[in-house]
Amino acid sequence: MSAASILRRIVLALFLAAGTVASLCASAFAQTDPLPSWNDGTVKKSIIDFVGRVTTQGSSDFVAVPERIATFDNDGTLWTEQPYYFQFAFALDRIKAMAPRHPEWKNKQPFKALLEGDKKTFAAAGKDGLLQVIAATHAGMTVGDFTKTVTAWTETARHPRFNRPYTELVYRPMLELLAYLRANGFKTFIVSGGGIEFMRPWTERVYGIPPEQVVGSSAMVKFQIGADGKPELMKLAKIEFIDDGPGKPAGINRFIGRRPIFAFGNSDGDLQMLQWTMAGQGLRFAGLVHHTDAEREYAYDRESKVGKLDKALDEASAKGWAVVDMKRDWNKVFPFEK
Amino acid sequence: MSAASILRRIVLALFLAAGTVASLCASAFAQTDPLPSWNDGTVKKSIIDFVGRVTTQGSSDFVAVPERIATFDNDGTLWTEQPYYFQFAFALDRIKAMAPRHPEWKNKQPFKALLEGDKKTFAAAGKDGLLQVIAATHAGMTVGDFTKTVTAWTETARHPRFNRPYTELVYRPMLELLAYLRANGFKTFIVSGGGIEFMRPWTERVYGIPPEQVVGSSAMVKFQIGADGKPELMKLAKIEFIDDGPGKPAGINRFIGRRPIFAFGNSDGDLQMLQWTMAGQGLRFAGLVHHTDAEREYAYDRESKVGKLDKALDEASAKGWAVVDMKRDWNKVFPFEK
Repeated sequence: MSAASILRRIVLALFLAAGTVASLCASAFAQTDPLPSWNDGTVKKSIIDFVGRVTTQGSSDFVAVPERIATFDNDGTLWTEQPYYFQFAFALDRIKAMAPRHPEWKNKQPFKALLEGDKKTFAAAGKDGLLQVIAATHAGMTVGDFTKTVTAWTETARHPRFNRPYTELVYRPMLELLAYLRANGFKTFIVSGGGIEFMRPWTERVYGIPPEQVVGSSAMVKFQIGADGKPELMKLAKIEFIDDGPGKPAGINRFIGRRPIFAFGNSDGDLQMLQWTMAGQGLRFAGLVHHTDAEREYAYDRESKVGKLDKALDEASAKGWAVVDMKRDWNKVFPFEK
Repeated sequence: MSAASILRRIVLALFLAAGTVASLCASAFAQTDPLPSWNDGTVKKSIIDFVGRVTTQGSSDFVAVPERIATFDNDGTLWTEQPYYFQFAFALDRIKAMAPRHPEWKNKQPFKALLEGDKKTFAAAGKDGLLQVIAATHAGMTVGDFTKTVTAWTETARHPRFNRPYTELVYRPMLELLAYLRANGFKTFIVSGGGIEFMRPWTERVYGIPPEQVVGSSAMVKFQIGADGKPELMKLAKIEFIDDGPGKPAGINRFIGRRPIFAFGNSDGDLQMLQWTMAGQGLRFAGLVHHTDAEREYAYDRESKVGKLDKALDEASAKGWAVVDMKRDWNKVFPFEK
């Protein structure tokens, strides 16, 4: 046997052996629980069963990797949304920080109400009041400057009850679920009513979801050449797209261009995303997080002002979608729990 | 030595050896030309130099994989755009196919002009005429039905000069460039003035670019429950976003949320995308395809109605951006050339 042919055989043997080792590692991994913060029960079983079926080559439910699209709502599905949407806390903190440069706000609603902590008056200002706050805090700056502001806020602001950065109030079982899906060839997306530019600065670090896989509500931006002669994108006080309710399937179609096979939400604002997901052909999965744990997090559904879950809960029940009972199904809620 | 420790050593040796083999394979690959349809010259050299520098660990120009975003215009950059944008050929073919169900078009402009091949009258109808054609051919159906129509068209329609499917009139050197960038950790996106739903049905097959990495112009869609009780997305005759000129950096910001480090275009509609790309920090690359080859493809620039290249050519010259001279720089233009 020539030296060259011996070398070829050795190389071949190495590749085959490496393959065997990789397989051994894979099956060792498969025996560990990919969702340790989920209690055994119908929801956990249905997730693992679904993933097994769509990833089994030759199965009638098999789905090719590029079509394994999973979409997740953010507020109340991946992180806490009580006692208010966190983006509202950001806006309020911005109003307070900007107030010294806006002495007129002392006598101008809805800013006066916000600065005085007068919730009732602010609530009475309704959608118009909210839009004024968004315009003041989310527009009139470049997208780069806005990103810096959001990043600084996530590093310093604290949740009123848990006294931790808001980005720590993410659900440990959902982080496991995201990782489990990605390990099985899924591409994970956020599809949120929240502001796209409010989420993107931290979703990669917190969820492992890169900016280009974040779909959300947005305001218009304008390309212009700045005072320093450099091109810039200026954020305008004009709503471009509301990625909520029927906007979610529209946003999925616009940004992703494929129908998800797996979707998770927690409120009526997610209903149409789940309907759209389930209306496709083949095996599909729709899930809802039902907040039932006032002790470890919050308990709310049909009557809640934030994250109302009413029609979607009925439809989930009628159609047999997975409904997470937080208290029953999750043995840990947050990553910081021991 | 125990059997277990021998096994550990063997496994370790296999891993190390497999690594060595992989490195050998990688360097063998590096010695083959990744851009064989590109002639040696300043443009090819600048591309390879750029990719080498941003992918070299420890280099001051190194860019982490997630930030290796590359954006490409489509019409005239990845495929031919003469004698008309191919999407216009699609719309015209649709008008002809739909005409029997629309007898009123025989006497109604701009449809009458299109059906009679009266270019002058159609051109005189201007933007309003074009919008009417888009409304008739791109709206009033579900996104699923539109996708089927586009797919059928790409399979049957033929280019008037080359007598081949339009999707074969893609540039071989650009396919090589896309593959070369992806092999070096880049994520490749299309950022086109063309319709997003006109491109997505075939970009994955033709360019290896999946739907979720295609940015383009769009019309509104509406989520509704169809007559069959199933949720559907209906295409409306209302422009949502024009991804051209200053719209390109806005579209990049909206869809991708990161600034590209590499961008390629071919017309003044790409100028702002290139400006936005180059205005970021660190090493960046901007390129233009200059159509100089009437024999193999087309020759046009400053005076062209389709794909006008004037201001962007001046700016490329002033700033030293790469300008492909198709005749000089490409030894093959299309994949079907032998």
